[in-house]
Amino acid sequence: MNPAEEDLAQALDGEVGLVTPKDFRCPDPFQFESGRSIPEFTLRYETYGQLNAERSNVILVAHALTGDHHSSGVHSLRDRKPGWWNNLIGPGKPIDTSRYFVLCVNCIGGCQGSTGPKSIDPRTGQAYNLTFPFITIRDMVRTQKILLDDLGVSELYAVIGGSMGGMQVLQWAIEYPDFVKRIIPMATTWRQNAQAIAFDEVGRQAIMQDPEWKAGNYDADKGPNVGLAIARMMAHITYLSDLSMDRKFGRKRPEGKGNRYSFDVEFEVESYLRYQAKSFINRFDANTYLYFTRALGYFDLENAYGSLDKAFEHLKCKALSIGFTTDWLFPPEQNREIVLAMLRQGIEASYTQLDIDLGHDSFLIDSPELFGLVRDFLAS
Amino acid sequence: MNPAEEDLAQALDGEVGLVTPKDFRCPDPFQFESGRSIPEFTLRYETYGQLNAERSNVILVAHALTGDHHSSGVHSLRDRKPGWWNNLIGPGKPIDTSRYFVLCVNCIGGCQGSTGPKSIDPRTGQAYNLTFPFITIRDMVRTQKILLDDLGVSELYAVIGGSMGGMQVLQWAIEYPDFVKRIIPMATTWRQNAQAIAFDEVGRQAIMQDPEWKAGNYDADKGPNVGLAIARMMAHITYLSDLSMDRKFGRKRPEGKGNRYSFDVEFEVESYLRYQAKSFINRFDANTYLYFTRALGYFDLENAYGSLDKAFEHLKCKALSIGFTTDWLFPPEQNREIVLAMLRQGIEASYTQLDIDLGHDSFLIDSPELFGLVRDFLAS
Repeated sequence: MNPAEEDLAQALDGEVGLVTPKDFRCPDPFQFESGRSIPEFTLRYETYGQLNAERSNVILVAHALTGDHHSSGVHSLRDRKPGWWNNLIGPGKPIDTSRYFVLCVNCIGGCQGSTGPKSIDPRTGQAYNLTFPFITIRDMVRTQKILLDDLGVSELYAVIGGSMGGMQVLQWAIEYPDFVKRIIPMATTWRQNAQAIAFDEVGRQAIMQDPEWKAGNYDADKGPNVGLAIARMMAHITYLSDLSMDRKFGRKRPEGKGNRYSFDVEFEVESYLRYQAKSFINRFDANTYLYFTRALGYFDLENAYGSLDKAFEHLKCKALSIGFTTDWLFPPEQNREIVLAMLRQGIEASYTQLDIDLGHDSFLIDSPELFGLVRDFLAS
Repeated sequence: MNPAEEDLAQALDGEVGLVTPKDFRCPDPFQFESGRSIPEFTLRYETYGQLNAERSNVILVAHALTGDHHSSGVHSLRDRKPGWWNNLIGPGKPIDTSRYFVLCVNCIGGCQGSTGPKSIDPRTGQAYNLTFPFITIRDMVRTQKILLDDLGVSELYAVIGGSMGGMQVLQWAIEYPDFVKRIIPMATTWRQNAQAIAFDEVGRQAIMQDPEWKAGNYDADKGPNVGLAIARMMAHITYLSDLSMDRKFGRKRPEGKGNRYSFDVEFEVESYLRYQAKSFINRFDANTYLYFTRALGYFDLENAYGSLDKAFEHLKCKALSIGFTTDWLFPPEQNREIVLAMLRQGIEASYTQLDIDLGHDSFLIDSPELFGLVRDFLAS
């Protein structure tokens, strides 16, 4: 190997490395929970590791509201960042791609390659926009099942995800009890509380009241970026904790200066939020944000099944639920209640609360405790 | 008395009753902490009760971000609601107007009668808009002192206020130690944490990114109402607690219906937020919102005086600080730190944490514990 090749080999050692997203096209109509249908759909997904001969080593990774199928590896060696759960997924990592075949799918309704509001409706030749059917977490799961069937997968060794991903994890276990062997929902809830519903509503209003939204019929290159940025800035605060924000930003001033007496950036945290918003509007679609936040609000296992206990009545999987002490969006108690209901149904379930102080986003960071829990549970 | 007169007499018994706001016009220039000046200013205020001969029974009530001078009584017998602290202020009430002369002032920079961004700059004949000087909590206090001097008030028996009002309370005690005898800051902080700064920044961005804001030069009848509404909806969530929102709204649907599969109101909490926003934009000015939230962010007693201890070093008042367990905007701990610093300075100060579950807005509700604390402290 020449020095450049050696560097590359070293960089990719223990990593998923280069990955290429795949598209699964389902040529059949799909009927959503709302009753409405689309004539066909595509799911973009990525896989890491090898499917074994029994097709029984599959781990499905479910993404959160603003996540996507790119959970590990890089698309190009020039990528600045790897996939969003790269530290968890890879050879020798807690989700060990030398043992498991890992699959991550951009949810139906998404904006990263799967069919969603900005896709073309083949019946009209126009973008769906708001004619796209409303989406539920169950719709996300059912479309993923169609993909897994197409791949010939016979069972899921495990399903794992945080936040909206955790909702999919729960729905998978309920919808396909014979198919799902292990679940790891984390930083999630079986139904949003009023505060979480309220924050999502403010985000939607920010988007829908933006004149550029145009009732959802904006051009691809000129959408309600202002509204989407406001929604993101606000939501981003709810993903962190006051502690982590104080530690990272506190009351720091740009360049250490005092009051400038200006409405421009006075505190570093303001500049951080603006940067977050700017990067978000370049990668995310406003209508998908509307549809996904509605899916979050609709998710309610008590309402759907009569009670949380009844929702879990037919489960056949083992479960590990993880809550985070400083998560005030989907508080740890809500994650604990999931396990208590499972235990009442005789399911082998355990709950762990981790004292990571990064708020809701704690599930996304490198934590030896979190990684150890996932590794041990998958080995069980 | 005829029956109508009897009803009226009964309705006003134990109440402040009809009040008429007054205007104090200061004909002299006022220099703000930023160094900039305005040639004259007006403060709108209300008083309840009678000033005693020694002019020593004055209680100053300081309002919060979106409050005003109308803290008790009604402006007309047809008013649907009395002033914002009507239950605390009145004859026989904790702030007893049969004993005290109570005064409440719309802060400088406000939009309810005091000189602020929407006032006419006499030098130009145009509204100040963004040429209005930046405001600090200290500017609010110093202008109020000019009014009190004009009224011949020789001392403040007490200053009381919550949230931004609590910041004014602290600043009063620091700025005029010989003048202030008792202070009751509540649900406040000596400096906002990064999370509170961040929420305010999102609110400002929502306003300033609204095309109708026009760099602050909007017409009086057509301002950035969308941005102001978004800011208010978001801020309103931060004034409540998840517990109180769950109790009041939970996941209730309008008319008990299930999913409508719509972006219109699906949950009652969404309808509540829209209503709150609508009523807010009818009474509040967007530029004042920008200026006041900046004042909140600038307030930092450690930065201004070197340390919290030094800030309180010359205080001569007694202090009662009240924090609320479920206030996550200005958490109880920040209210407690105020008292700890005062105690280190030998000041007679006490801290009480009340377990009211209404979040930041707990200071605004009827609570026997809160009312008893205020009553007893004022009698001391």
